[in-house]
Amino acid sequence: MNMPFQTFDEQSDASQCAARLMALRIELGTRSLDGFLVPRSDEHQGEYVPKRAERLAFLTGFTGSAGLAVVLMEKAAVFVDGRYTLQLRNQTDTSLFETLDITNDGAANWIEANLPRGAKLGYDPWLHTQGAVERLRISVERAGGQLIATSNPLDAVWPDQPEPPHARAIPHPIELAGETSGAKRARLAEDLKKRSADAAILTMPDSICWLLNIRGADVPHTPFVLAFAILNADASVDLFMDAKKSSPELLAHLGNEVRSRAPAEFEPALDALKGKTALADPAWAAAAIFQRLEQAGAKIIRAPDPCQLPKACKNEAELAGTRRAHIRDGQALTRFLAWFAREAPKGALTEIDTVEKLEAFRAATGALKDVSFDSISGAGPHGAIVHYRVTRKTNRRIEPGQLFLIDSGAQFVDGTTDVTRTVAVGEPTAEMRDRFTRVLRGHIQLALARFPEGTTGAQLDAFARRPLWDAGLDYGHGTGHGVGSYLSVHEGPQSISSRGVGQALKPGMICSNEPGYYKTGEYGIRIENLVVVRGGAEIAGGEKAMLGFETITMAPIDLALVEASMLTREERDWLNVYHVQVRAAVAPALSGDDAAWLIQATRGI
Amino acid sequence: MNMPFQTFDEQSDASQCAARLMALRIELGTRSLDGFLVPRSDEHQGEYVPKRAERLAFLTGFTGSAGLAVVLMEKAAVFVDGRYTLQLRNQTDTSLFETLDITNDGAANWIEANLPRGAKLGYDPWLHTQGAVERLRISVERAGGQLIATSNPLDAVWPDQPEPPHARAIPHPIELAGETSGAKRARLAEDLKKRSADAAILTMPDSICWLLNIRGADVPHTPFVLAFAILNADASVDLFMDAKKSSPELLAHLGNEVRSRAPAEFEPALDALKGKTALADPAWAAAAIFQRLEQAGAKIIRAPDPCQLPKACKNEAELAGTRRAHIRDGQALTRFLAWFAREAPKGALTEIDTVEKLEAFRAATGALKDVSFDSISGAGPHGAIVHYRVTRKTNRRIEPGQLFLIDSGAQFVDGTTDVTRTVAVGEPTAEMRDRFTRVLRGHIQLALARFPEGTTGAQLDAFARRPLWDAGLDYGHGTGHGVGSYLSVHEGPQSISSRGVGQALKPGMICSNEPGYYKTGEYGIRIENLVVVRGGAEIAGGEKAMLGFETITMAPIDLALVEASMLTREERDWLNVYHVQVRAAVAPALSGDDAAWLIQATRGI
Repeated sequence: MNMPFQTFDEQSDASQCAARLMALRIELGTRSLDGFLVPRSDEHQGEYVPKRAERLAFLTGFTGSAGLAVVLMEKAAVFVDGRYTLQLRNQTDTSLFETLDITNDGAANWIEANLPRGAKLGYDPWLHTQGAVERLRISVERAGGQLIATSNPLDAVWPDQPEPPHARAIPHPIELAGETSGAKRARLAEDLKKRSADAAILTMPDSICWLLNIRGADVPHTPFVLAFAILNADASVDLFMDAKKSSPELLAHLGNEVRSRAPAEFEPALDALKGKTALADPAWAAAAIFQRLEQAGAKIIRAPDPCQLPKACKNEAELAGTRRAHIRDGQALTRFLAWFAREAPKGALTEIDTVEKLEAFRAATGALKDVSFDSISGAGPHGAIVHYRVTRKTNRRIEPGQLFLIDSGAQFVDGTTDVTRTVAVGEPTAEMRDRFTRVLRGHIQLALARFPEGTTGAQLDAFARRPLWDAGLDYGHGTGHGVGSYLSVHEGPQSISSRGVGQALKPGMICSNEPGYYKTGEYGIRIENLVVVRGGAEIAGGEKAMLGFETITMAPIDLALVEASMLTREERDWLNVYHVQVRAAVAPALSGDDAAWLIQATRGI
Repeated sequence: MNMPFQTFDEQSDASQCAARLMALRIELGTRSLDGFLVPRSDEHQGEYVPKRAERLAFLTGFTGSAGLAVVLMEKAAVFVDGRYTLQLRNQTDTSLFETLDITNDGAANWIEANLPRGAKLGYDPWLHTQGAVERLRISVERAGGQLIATSNPLDAVWPDQPEPPHARAIPHPIELAGETSGAKRARLAEDLKKRSADAAILTMPDSICWLLNIRGADVPHTPFVLAFAILNADASVDLFMDAKKSSPELLAHLGNEVRSRAPAEFEPALDALKGKTALADPAWAAAAIFQRLEQAGAKIIRAPDPCQLPKACKNEAELAGTRRAHIRDGQALTRFLAWFAREAPKGALTEIDTVEKLEAFRAATGALKDVSFDSISGAGPHGAIVHYRVTRKTNRRIEPGQLFLIDSGAQFVDGTTDVTRTVAVGEPTAEMRDRFTRVLRGHIQLALARFPEGTTGAQLDAFARRPLWDAGLDYGHGTGHGVGSYLSVHEGPQSISSRGVGQALKPGMICSNEPGYYKTGEYGIRIENLVVVRGGAEIAGGEKAMLGFETITMAPIDLALVEASMLTREERDWLNVYHVQVRAAVAPALSGDDAAWLIQATRGI
C-alpha cells in the first residue's frame, strides 16, 4: 500500500503562536496599520486550500476548514461556527486569542465593540469576497475606523511559508468529460454575447477544470488545478497558471484557443478590460478582482460564475462514469461493512482502524486517486459530533452496544463518491432503532419525491425531516449538497437545505441525501446516498413530466436498526428494491464470507 | 338588506381610451417627455387602491389588481401577469395598446426594444418602489434613454379624477387589539434605538392602522386608513392624514404622543430628517421617499417596515377575536352550503346568486363590516380560472355534474376571514374525486405538520403539493398567505410558498392553507382554511417544542368528493376530528333542514 491519503496526526501546534502574533503586530506597526483580518481562505475561496494559505492555522493553531482571526494591537479574537467551537478552544492559546462563535457573537459585533476610533484595519483583498468586505466595512465604519486593503503582512513574517503548489495539470479525457472544452466554451460564449459581456472572470478552480477538461492535485482530496482564467466572448480563454503545472501534452490538449499565461499577467489582464464589460461572481470572486476592474474602468456584471450551473448538470458520459465509480465504491464499502460486521463485535477495533481498512479496500480497487475528504469515523458519542475527524489523540475503541457512523468518499477518475452508513455493534436499543428508522424514512421520502421543474432543494428538504419533526426531533445540518464529477465533493449551485432557495434542481445534478439524528454524548445516525436528478419520466394520468431522483450509492443499510413496523408499504418497497439493486451491483466483487454476508444484509423485510 | 358589498357590473369602459391616451401624449409633449409609466398602484403600494389611483383602468380600460402601462409617443403596451392576460385582452383596445405577459415578455425587454435612443421616459416616483425604479432604469439606460421622475401627467389630463378618500378613521378597541398603541410604539422605539435609528418611515396603511389601533374605510374590502407616518425613537408618531378623517374621539384615542398633521407636511418632515438616521422599507416605500431623504441628507437604513412582523404575530386578544369571527363566519358559510345543497341540484342557480346569498347569510350575522375581497364563485370551467371574478357578462348557471368553487371572506371587527370550499353538484366523476382527495391530503398534511422554530413557509409548501406531485399534477399558486386581524386579507411578511424564504413562521401568525387543482376548461378544486401558528406544544419523547397549526376556519368539507380509501389513517382521523369541531362550532346557529344537513355533512368516514 502507498502512502495513505488520510493521516491522523495533529497538525496543530500553538507553541509558536505568541511569537508569530508579535511579529505580525510589529509588521502592522511598520505599515501604520492598527489591525489585520486573517480568514481561513485562499484566493479562490475554496473549501480545501494549499498549505501556503493555511495562515489561520499558522497564526492561531486552529486547523478547521472555516474561521476568521481579527488581530488588533492590544487584543485578538478568532471566530468559528458552531461545529468548530470546541476544536478552536483545544487548539488555540486562549491567552492570546478570544475564541468566539461566529454565529452568536459575530466578528462584526466584536469589531464594533473593540476597534479603537480612528483605527486602520487591514485586509488582504484576495482572501475575502466583495460581499464579505462590504459587510465588514459597515462594522468598521460604525466603530469609527477604516478598512484598508493591503498586501498580506502575515506572509511578510512567515519565513518558511510554503510555495504555491504546482502539481501537474492533466487532461481529463473526453470519454469521461462527455463534451469537449471547445463545445463548452462555445455555448458559454454564446451566453456572454447575449448578455453583452466581453468576458467572464473565472476564479473557481472547479469551474476552470470543468471548462478546460483538466484536473490537477494542488489541494488535498480534490483534483483542482489552482488558476485564474478569463473566458472571452469569442470562446477563447486566457488561463493564468504557473508554467510548472503545464506540459506539452497539456498544451496540446488545451489547443490554440486557450492561451496559457503566467499568473503575474492576471492583474494586467484585468486592467486591459478597461471600457469592456466583464462578468464576475460577487459570491466567490475576491474583492481584489472587483477593485481592480473598477479601477481599470471596466463595466462589471455581477452574476453567478457561468460555469457553475452547466458543470452541475452532468451529461450522460459523466453520469455513466459516476455510476461505475459508485458500483466500484460500493463494492469496497460493502467489503468493509462485511469485515466490520465480523470484527467489531470482538471489541478491539478503533476508529482509526476502520478508516485505514476502508481506505485499503478502496485502494484495492486499483482506481483510487484520493479519498474525497477526511473520513468521519465516530464510535458512540463521537458519532454525535457532526464534523468529527478522528486523530491519534481522540481515537476511540468501538464497543458492543454502540452505534458506529462512518462518512467517507473516494476520488476516482470517473466519479467522486460520498457515503455514510451507521451500523449497530451488538444489540441496538429500541430508541436507536426508532431514531434510525425515522432517519431512514426521511431518506426514503426524499428519494421517492417527484417534483416539477423549477423546484428548489429548499422546497424538498423538509420531506427528509418530517419523520423526525413528528417526534419533536431534528438535525442541525442541510439534507444535501451538490457533488462533482471527479471534482469537489461539495459543489454548488444547488443545495437540498433551507438555504437552497436560489437554484432549481435540474436533470443531471448529483446531490447527497443525508438526513441524520444526533444524541449528544450517546450516538449519531446518518444515512447518506448520492442521488442524480432525473427528468422526463411520465406518470400515468399525469399532466407534466416530473423530475425525480435516481439513487447511485450502492451499499447495504443496516437492517438490524430498521423497525419495519414503522415503515409504510411504499417505504418498505423502496428499501427492498434498493437492496436488490445493491446486491446485483456489488456481488460480483465479493466472495466467501463477504458474499454470504451480503446476501443476509440485503434480505427482504 | 343594505347595499351589497360586492357588485357585478363591468367597471371597464375602453371607449374613452383613445382620447385619454392622446391627451396624455399631448401633456407629455408639453413637458418634453417621450413616454410615461402607468402602474396599477397608489402611494402605499397596496393591493386595494382608492378610485383616484385607478389610473391604469382610466387609461387602458383594464381593471385587474396588478399591471403596468408603458406609453411612448408612437406605441404603448400594457403588461400583466398570467392570471390577467385574458382579461386584459377583453378590456383593452388592442389597437391602442400591445397586451403582453409581464412574466414572459417583461416590461424591461419591451422598453429596451422600443424606447428610442435619447428618449426621456417619465415616472411618478410615488407610484413605484425604489427597487422597481432601479430595475427599470437599467433597461432604459440600455436603450440609451433616461428615466425621469415627474409629477403625474395623467392626473393633469383626468379632469374628473376622484378626490383622495377621506372616510372617518375610528379607534380599534383595546379589547380587540390586545395591546395599546403606546405599548406597541414603545417596543418598536426600543428597537429603533438599538439600531441607532432616529425614525422609521411608515408607508403601509396596515402598519399604521396596527400601530395606532385605528381602522378606516378608504379602500374597498379592507378597513385601511390611507396615511403616512413617522415613528420616532422617542415612541412618538407624526401621522400625516387628511383632517377630514379625524374626529375629537379619534384625537382623544391617539393621545399626545401622536401628532396629527396635514398630508402636505409629510415631505417637509422628510426634509427635516437631515443628518438623522431614518429606516425605510425598499420593498414597499415609494421611490419618492428615498429620493427625498437622500436629497435632504438623511442617513437611510433600508430594512423591512418594523410593524410588519409584530403585526403578523397576533396576540391572544386578537386570536380570541379571530376565533369568534371564524365561528360566526363558519355559521354563515354552513347555512349557505346547506342552502346550496338543496338548491343547486335544481339547476337554476347562477354564480351571482351564490355570491349574493352568501353575502346575505354573512350580513344576517349582524356583524359584517364588508366582504374581505370580491368572492370567487366559479361553476365548472370557471372554477379552473384561479382569479375568476363573476360579472353580469360572465355569470353562468351552475349545472348538475359540475364542481362549484367558492372562495370568499368577511371583515368582522374581531377578525378577517378567507375560506374556499369546492362542492359537487350531483354525482362527481372518479377523476374529480381522485383530484379532490389529493388536494385534501395536501391540505391535511400541511395542517398536521410539526416544525421547529426558524422554519419558513417555503420549507412547508411542498407538504401540500406532494399528493399531487406524486400523480404528475400541481397547482400554479402559493399554498398560503398571511391574513390580518380586521385588516388586509393578504398580508406579509410570511408566505407558505416557494417565495416564502425570508421569514420564519412564528406563533400567532395567521396563514391560509389552500392547495388546489385546476383542469382548464373543466373544473377547479381548492380547499382553503385559515390556520394559526401555535407554539410550545410538547411532543412526548421529543427534544424540542415544535410549532404547529391550529385550524380556525369552521365549515364542512364535501364528503361526496372524498375517496376515503386514498387517505392514510392519520388523514382520515384529521378529517373526522375536524368535522366534529365544525359541528360543535356551527350547530348552535342552525335549525331545521340546515341542522339536519350539518349532521350528515360532518358524519364520520
